[in-house]
Amino acid sequence: MAHHTYYPTRIRGLSVRDIRFPTSLQSDGSDAIHPDPDYSCAYVILYTDTDVKGHGLSFTIGRGNELVVAAVKSLAPVIVGRQLSDIYGDFAGTWRALTSESQMRWVGPEKGVLHLAVAALINALWDLWARCERKPLWKLLVDMEPEKLVSTIDFRYIEDVLTREEAIHMLKEMQPGKERREERMINRGYPAYTTGAGWLGYSQEKIEGLLKEYMAQGWRHFKIKVGQDLEDDKRRCKIVREIIGEDRTLMVDANQKWGVDQAIAWMKELAPYKPLWIEEPTSPDDVLGHATIAKALRPLGIGVATGEMCQNRVIFKQLLQAKAIDYCQIDACRLGGVNEILAVYLMAKKFHVPVCPHAGGVGLCEMVQHLQIWDYISVSASTKDRIVEYVAHLQEHFKHPRKVNHCHYLAPKVAGYSVEMWEESLLAYEFPYGSQWKKLFTEGKYKDPRTSPPPYVEHRLKGSITQR
Amino acid sequence: MAHHTYYPTRIRGLSVRDIRFPTSLQSDGSDAIHPDPDYSCAYVILYTDTDVKGHGLSFTIGRGNELVVAAVKSLAPVIVGRQLSDIYGDFAGTWRALTSESQMRWVGPEKGVLHLAVAALINALWDLWARCERKPLWKLLVDMEPEKLVSTIDFRYIEDVLTREEAIHMLKEMQPGKERREERMINRGYPAYTTGAGWLGYSQEKIEGLLKEYMAQGWRHFKIKVGQDLEDDKRRCKIVREIIGEDRTLMVDANQKWGVDQAIAWMKELAPYKPLWIEEPTSPDDVLGHATIAKALRPLGIGVATGEMCQNRVIFKQLLQAKAIDYCQIDACRLGGVNEILAVYLMAKKFHVPVCPHAGGVGLCEMVQHLQIWDYISVSASTKDRIVEYVAHLQEHFKHPRKVNHCHYLAPKVAGYSVEMWEESLLAYEFPYGSQWKKLFTEGKYKDPRTSPPPYVEHRLKGSITQR
Repeated sequence: MAHHTYYPTRIRGLSVRDIRFPTSLQSDGSDAIHPDPDYSCAYVILYTDTDVKGHGLSFTIGRGNELVVAAVKSLAPVIVGRQLSDIYGDFAGTWRALTSESQMRWVGPEKGVLHLAVAALINALWDLWARCERKPLWKLLVDMEPEKLVSTIDFRYIEDVLTREEAIHMLKEMQPGKERREERMINRGYPAYTTGAGWLGYSQEKIEGLLKEYMAQGWRHFKIKVGQDLEDDKRRCKIVREIIGEDRTLMVDANQKWGVDQAIAWMKELAPYKPLWIEEPTSPDDVLGHATIAKALRPLGIGVATGEMCQNRVIFKQLLQAKAIDYCQIDACRLGGVNEILAVYLMAKKFHVPVCPHAGGVGLCEMVQHLQIWDYISVSASTKDRIVEYVAHLQEHFKHPRKVNHCHYLAPKVAGYSVEMWEESLLAYEFPYGSQWKKLFTEGKYKDPRTSPPPYVEHRLKGSITQR
Repeated sequence: MAHHTYYPTRIRGLSVRDIRFPTSLQSDGSDAIHPDPDYSCAYVILYTDTDVKGHGLSFTIGRGNELVVAAVKSLAPVIVGRQLSDIYGDFAGTWRALTSESQMRWVGPEKGVLHLAVAALINALWDLWARCERKPLWKLLVDMEPEKLVSTIDFRYIEDVLTREEAIHMLKEMQPGKERREERMINRGYPAYTTGAGWLGYSQEKIEGLLKEYMAQGWRHFKIKVGQDLEDDKRRCKIVREIIGEDRTLMVDANQKWGVDQAIAWMKELAPYKPLWIEEPTSPDDVLGHATIAKALRPLGIGVATGEMCQNRVIFKQLLQAKAIDYCQIDACRLGGVNEILAVYLMAKKFHVPVCPHAGGVGLCEMVQHLQIWDYISVSASTKDRIVEYVAHLQEHFKHPRKVNHCHYLAPKVAGYSVEMWEESLLAYEFPYGSQWKKLFTEGKYKDPRTSPPPYVEHRLKGSITQR
C-alpha cells in the first residue's frame, strides 16, 4: 500500500442513513414473493482524518432497512477509531472481527441483518482503500499481488475445498494476458442482460413494448419472473419466446416460490420455451434441494441459478460441492462484502461454475461490474456462459453510475467502488426525514411512521406509553 | 378451541424489553467462540382484551439483543390488533405472515435477527394459547388432535421429505399408550444432562469440585467445552473421564471452532476418552461438512450433534437427509418458535434421529422441557439416546422455573410455556435502564451506552451530531 502524502491514517467516525425509494408505487421490482418492494439501502460513509471518505451500502427492499442501519451502528465500535494500516494490514482479521464480534455473532452468525450490515461497512472500507490508491475497485484488485489479495480472505469453513495456497496458485496462473483482457474491458466492456421487461406487476403491453425496445437496443438475453400462476407463466414465456426468437436467450426467475418437487414439475411445463436457467427455484438455504432440481432439469437443457439470498461462503461452498448450481449468482451485499465475494469467485472457478452476479436494486449494478471485470481479467479470463444482470433504474442517484454501451458494462474509470450517491438524493430519500418522504406522507401515499407509530405498548423504567 | 367466558378475543398491543444479565463477569457460559457472553433476551408480553397475557422471549448473549428487540417492534404490526380466532384458526398462515412479511423477509429470510424476533413473538402466542386453555404447553400439544397440531406447521420447503398427511399419520400411530407415558412424565420426568461443570473459563479445581458435586446428586451425563487448545482438551477429557468412570457419559462441544478436516483430526485425538458426541464441530450452515465429519467419526463411536445455531427447518431437513447428525439439537428460539420446532421433531422421527434439545441460556430449559415431554408422549415414545441439556443458572428470575428432581425435568403443571419472569427481575435487568445496570455503570464494571455512545457520526436533516 503506497503511502501518498494525503493518505488518511485512521477511521474517525461513520454515518449511516436509512435511504428508501418508493418504488412499490410503480410495481418496479415486483415478483412472486416480493409484491411491493421499496428499493432501499443502509448507506454508510466512513470519515477519516483527511478529506478522503469511504462510501458503502447494503441493499434491502424497504421495511427492515432500519434493522440493517441499527446493526451498522452496533458494529461501528469494531472499526471506528482504528488505524487504516491495522485494518488493511490484516483485512481478513478485520473481517473476522466484524463477523465474529463475540456477543453479536449470536444473532447471526454471518447471515441476515447482521451480515448485510457487515457488507455495508466492508464495502465502504474497500471504496476507501480504492480511493486512497486512486483506482477503481476492479483495478485495485487486478493490480494487487495474488498473495496480498488472498490475504484479505477468511478461509475459516472453506479450507476443505479451497486453501490459501491453491487460491494464490490460481491467480498466478492467470497473470499472462492480463493487459490484453484489461484493454478489452475498457474498450468493449462486460456483457449484460436485462430484467427490465420481466417484472410480474407489468402489463402484457408494457412487457411487449419493453422487449421490442430492448431488442432494438441490441439486447440478446431476457429474464422474466415466473412462479405465480403456471398457465400465465406458459402464456408469457410463449409470447416472449415468439418475440425474441430462437437465437436470443430467455431466463426465468421464481424468487424462491416453490418446494423441490413443485419446482421440477413446474419447470418441465416451461421447458418447451427453452429457458437457459431457472433462478431461485426454492429456498436459498436448500443446497440439497437445488441439487435435486438441477439433476432433474439438466437433461432438459435447463440450468439452475441462485445466490442473491445465499447468506455466506459456506452456502456457496456447498452449492458448488453438491453440483447444485450451473450459474453462481453472487450478490454484492448479501455476502459480507468484497473479502467474502473473492472467496466465492475462486471456489466457483475451482468447480468450473460461471459467476453471473445478481444486480438491479440500489447500487448493485454499480458494484458487481467491478467484481465481474476483475473475474474476467484475473480469474476466469472468459465471458463464456457469464453475463451480468442489468436494470436501468435509480442510477440517477449515483455520482458515477455504471455506463452501459451496446449492452456491455464499461470498466469504471473513477476511483472507488462506484456507490457514492448525490447528497441531494440522500437528503430527499432519507426515511422518514427526507423531502420526498415528507411529500409522500402529505399526499397520503404512505403513512408517516412518526405520527402512525406501530401499535405496541412500551414499558420502560422512565415511564410507560400505551398505544391503541 | 374451547371458548371460556374469560377467553380474550384480540391482541391489543405488545411490549418488548431488552433484558441482559452480566454473566460475563463470572465467565459463566464461556466457550471457544464466545468468551464473554452476557446472557440476555428480548422479552415480549402480548396484551389482550382480558387480563390474560402471553409471555415469550428469545435468548441472545448480549450485544445484538437490541437488534432483536428492534425487529420485534418492526414485526409488531403483523399481529397487533388481530383477532385470536384468526391467529390460531390459521396458525401456519400467521407464522407465514411473520416470516414472509413482503419487505422484511429480504433481511432474513427465516434466519438471524429477524427469525429470533419471530421466535419471541411466536413463543408468546403459544404461551397465550396455553394459558387460555389453562394448560401447560406440553399438555396443550399432547391433547391437540393430530390434524389440528399439524395445521400449525408451514410445510413450505419441507414437503419433499415430510407431507402433512405423513405427519398426521405419525401422530395418530402413537396415540396408544399416551396416558401411561403422560403419567411417567408427571411422576418421574425427563432425563437431563449437565453442562454446568464444563465451561472453558472455569479453573481445574472448579471443574473437579463441580463434577464430584454433580455425581453425588446422581448426574450421569457430562458435557465439556473443547476446541481452544488440543493438549489442554486431552488433559481435561482425561481428568473428566477418570473422575466420572467408564459407565457415565462424556460429551464434548466445540462451538463451531473448526473447519471440516480440522474437526476430524482433532476428534481422532479425543477418541480415547470416548465422548458420546461432538457438538457443533464446524459452521452451523455446513450441512455437507457435518456429513463428512459424521462419516469419519462414526467408526470411532463418536456421534455428531448440532442445532443451537441452525437457522430453520430447511437446514435441519438437509442435516437429516445427508445423515449429517446423530443427535438433533433444536433450540427454542433459534427456530421460529413452536410451529417450526414441531416440524423438526417430526422430520427427526422420520429419519430415526433422536432430538436432544439445546438449553441453558435464559429460559431455554423452561421451554424445551415442554417440547421434549410432548415428543415422549406423542411422537417418539422413547427416551433412548435422548437427553435434555440442563444448566442451573438464572432460574431465580422465572416465576415458574423448571423443576429438576433426581436429574429429571418434571412435567410443568402451570398453564403456559413457563417463561414468565418476575417483574422485579425485568425492572432490575432491563438494559440500560434497570437498577442492576445502573449499579454496574456506577461501579465502572460496564460502560453506560447512553453516556458512552458508540463513536459514529450521525447525519440527519434535523441536524448533525459529530462525536469524537
